[in-house]
Amino acid sequence: MNSTRDMLGRGGLLSVRQAVEVITAQLAGRTLASESLPLAEAFERILATRLLSPVNLPAESRSTMDGFAVRATDTFGASQGSPCYLTISGEVRMGEAPQGEVAPGNCHKIPTGGLLPTGADAVVMLEDTVEVDATMIEIVKGVPVWGNVIRPGEDIAAGALALDAGSTLRPQDIGLLAGLGMASVEVYRQVRVGILSTGDEIVPHHETPRPGQIRDINSLALAGQVRQAGGIPHILPIVSDREEIFLPALREAVAANDLVLFSGGSSVGARDLGERAIATLGPPGILVHGVALKPGKPIIFGMSGPTPIFGLPGHPVSAMVCFDLFVRPAMALLAGRRGDDLPLPHVTATLRRNLNSAAGRRDIVRVRLEQSDQGWVAEPVLGKSGAISTLSRAHGWFVINESSQGLTENSLIEVFLYS
Amino acid sequence: MNSTRDMLGRGGLLSVRQAVEVITAQLAGRTLASESLPLAEAFERILATRLLSPVNLPAESRSTMDGFAVRATDTFGASQGSPCYLTISGEVRMGEAPQGEVAPGNCHKIPTGGLLPTGADAVVMLEDTVEVDATMIEIVKGVPVWGNVIRPGEDIAAGALALDAGSTLRPQDIGLLAGLGMASVEVYRQVRVGILSTGDEIVPHHETPRPGQIRDINSLALAGQVRQAGGIPHILPIVSDREEIFLPALREAVAANDLVLFSGGSSVGARDLGERAIATLGPPGILVHGVALKPGKPIIFGMSGPTPIFGLPGHPVSAMVCFDLFVRPAMALLAGRRGDDLPLPHVTATLRRNLNSAAGRRDIVRVRLEQSDQGWVAEPVLGKSGAISTLSRAHGWFVINESSQGLTENSLIEVFLYS
Repeated sequence: MNSTRDMLGRGGLLSVRQAVEVITAQLAGRTLASESLPLAEAFERILATRLLSPVNLPAESRSTMDGFAVRATDTFGASQGSPCYLTISGEVRMGEAPQGEVAPGNCHKIPTGGLLPTGADAVVMLEDTVEVDATMIEIVKGVPVWGNVIRPGEDIAAGALALDAGSTLRPQDIGLLAGLGMASVEVYRQVRVGILSTGDEIVPHHETPRPGQIRDINSLALAGQVRQAGGIPHILPIVSDREEIFLPALREAVAANDLVLFSGGSSVGARDLGERAIATLGPPGILVHGVALKPGKPIIFGMSGPTPIFGLPGHPVSAMVCFDLFVRPAMALLAGRRGDDLPLPHVTATLRRNLNSAAGRRDIVRVRLEQSDQGWVAEPVLGKSGAISTLSRAHGWFVINESSQGLTENSLIEVFLYS
Repeated sequence: MNSTRDMLGRGGLLSVRQAVEVITAQLAGRTLASESLPLAEAFERILATRLLSPVNLPAESRSTMDGFAVRATDTFGASQGSPCYLTISGEVRMGEAPQGEVAPGNCHKIPTGGLLPTGADAVVMLEDTVEVDATMIEIVKGVPVWGNVIRPGEDIAAGALALDAGSTLRPQDIGLLAGLGMASVEVYRQVRVGILSTGDEIVPHHETPRPGQIRDINSLALAGQVRQAGGIPHILPIVSDREEIFLPALREAVAANDLVLFSGGSSVGARDLGERAIATLGPPGILVHGVALKPGKPIIFGMSGPTPIFGLPGHPVSAMVCFDLFVRPAMALLAGRRGDDLPLPHVTATLRRNLNSAAGRRDIVRVRLEQSDQGWVAEPVLGKSGAISTLSRAHGWFVINESSQGLTENSLIEVFLYS
């Protein structure tokens, strides 16, 4: 890390990519323990084991249509001009094993989902039949073998991969596991995140600040982001940024949580305090001292043994942008979440104004979206990074990369939506 | 609705758009009651009132930089070649009201976030100063009036719109309301959704089915979708599709919930039973009898007084697609959620194979996404609509519209991601 230190021994700025690499290197292989949960409680949790299907789904051949279970060969060549005739020798009822066998020249009435009776190997749709009388039908269209039938294991076969470890359990995944009869599943523990707001000027949001004081915005905003990321937020009492008070509070937060966020003032003094505290709680101690990012430059990161600690900027917008770029991927590693191979969904929009940026720095620009005749238009929500209303008014954000010095009006941009 | 009935008096198919219009017309103005919640518990809830800011945020002028609070006119014209000199007459501390006034020719040291002292109207950044001695600084760059200062109400002014009714409270919105000192907020009640699986062949997922029986997939899968949509799912016991058992169970579900979903077999018999039951529980009774949609055609919809009832197809994939297209917007209306003006985020991908569709029908095609040299490639996950594994293997879905008879390989498509 020496190369990132400046002449005063202070850490230099890493690029966003470098900072993510440092964080990733520290947390790789540190996935939390797992726990067993009833399937009905596992929604949005992360699977800790690779699950193979213990059964064939469906277990038996079933009809996918209302119609008649037949021997397919009996229907070959049937058409409007040259129909074939079959005797109705039985009826399949839902939820019951079918009675009797379908002999050549015979058929059984069968509902959608009904179990295919012995002898039958296809279902003729009701629409392709004409009732002759109560005991006979005319078939006006032939059906191939296994036509209108779902075969054992055709949904998923016994022994096939049902879901891989690291999958987030979406509604359809829970549905699949229900179909396979899994009463419980092994999932990773949720990441417990301690959230510490520091600063002698900060008061809880429900109190009235005296002159010079401000209300705590970051604790609740970060708690919401932690929940969005699947974690369990623990909002800790606001602490002074005097070292003798802050350091023990941070130590306690590290002991009680899987990951700790603190956010303090954005002054040089506050940042120095944070760096000293993380260094003291190491090794490995402080690892990232600021990132070439706007907003979010003063972020610091380090480890106290196995526990990652992020010192987020005090400005709410900066803190929340840093959460998205650095804390969310760190939580994904602890939580065992896979899925980085999927794209971030976005909308393409036209930028409504010129925007300058500095080369070598990544800018995260918040925008409002409006529909126009030409599609979506993105209006940057400008404002100081302390202004939480800019983030509340934004629908999404886009990136101006390190290689760019800005964008001109009417550029096409990819906007990621806040959820 | 007469025009949608066929010659047998059965309902004809509506288009997806028509069905959504019927549902919307029934539920407009039926938003649930509101309740008051502590702000910390309101994450992802929907605001029931329009909130104006009760205060200026920030309340006072604050520095956005570490530096010196000055009278801007004292610095006008200052440069490296022609610096100006100011006497340090005080220091602002965080969390305290500033002491004394900044007189002409003087300055006060100030940290980021510090309260601007009386007399000062700008802050010179530390980087633009040189310390002469403990009592004097040299300023090498002039600062305009209110430079490096955030003014009272500049984030949000007293009386300005903070958040509109119908907003879903995202982390940054909770942060904004914290900054405004809102200890509690009025939000709409969450939609209680009764989920009823019907069919003599259905057994709970944790039981072992006998021949002819199948495990209940829809209850857990739909419960997950209800939670995703911000509602509270109530999974009810599985009931027989015999009318004398099903009808009282449905009546009870309607009485105890804000919206009811039942899913049964996809046979004509099961659908008829559902239509009769909704008609019996009316008025208004049954309103949608099937939609030109694949999968999902057999969906039915009606109202029992103020309570919407959806009869979803028994096939899990069909049921879940119908949830996304019809139940989710219905829940949004009951929940008072705005935001339909925002685009659905998506990714653009190349379709890997030819796909046929029928004109006049909307197809929802599930796909897996893979990255290639040319960007994202979408591979359709084909399979019968009873096959839940097709949905579990899918990353997202795209639409083949009513006007199209299919798409050719290498078409560009917009894929919406499952979350």
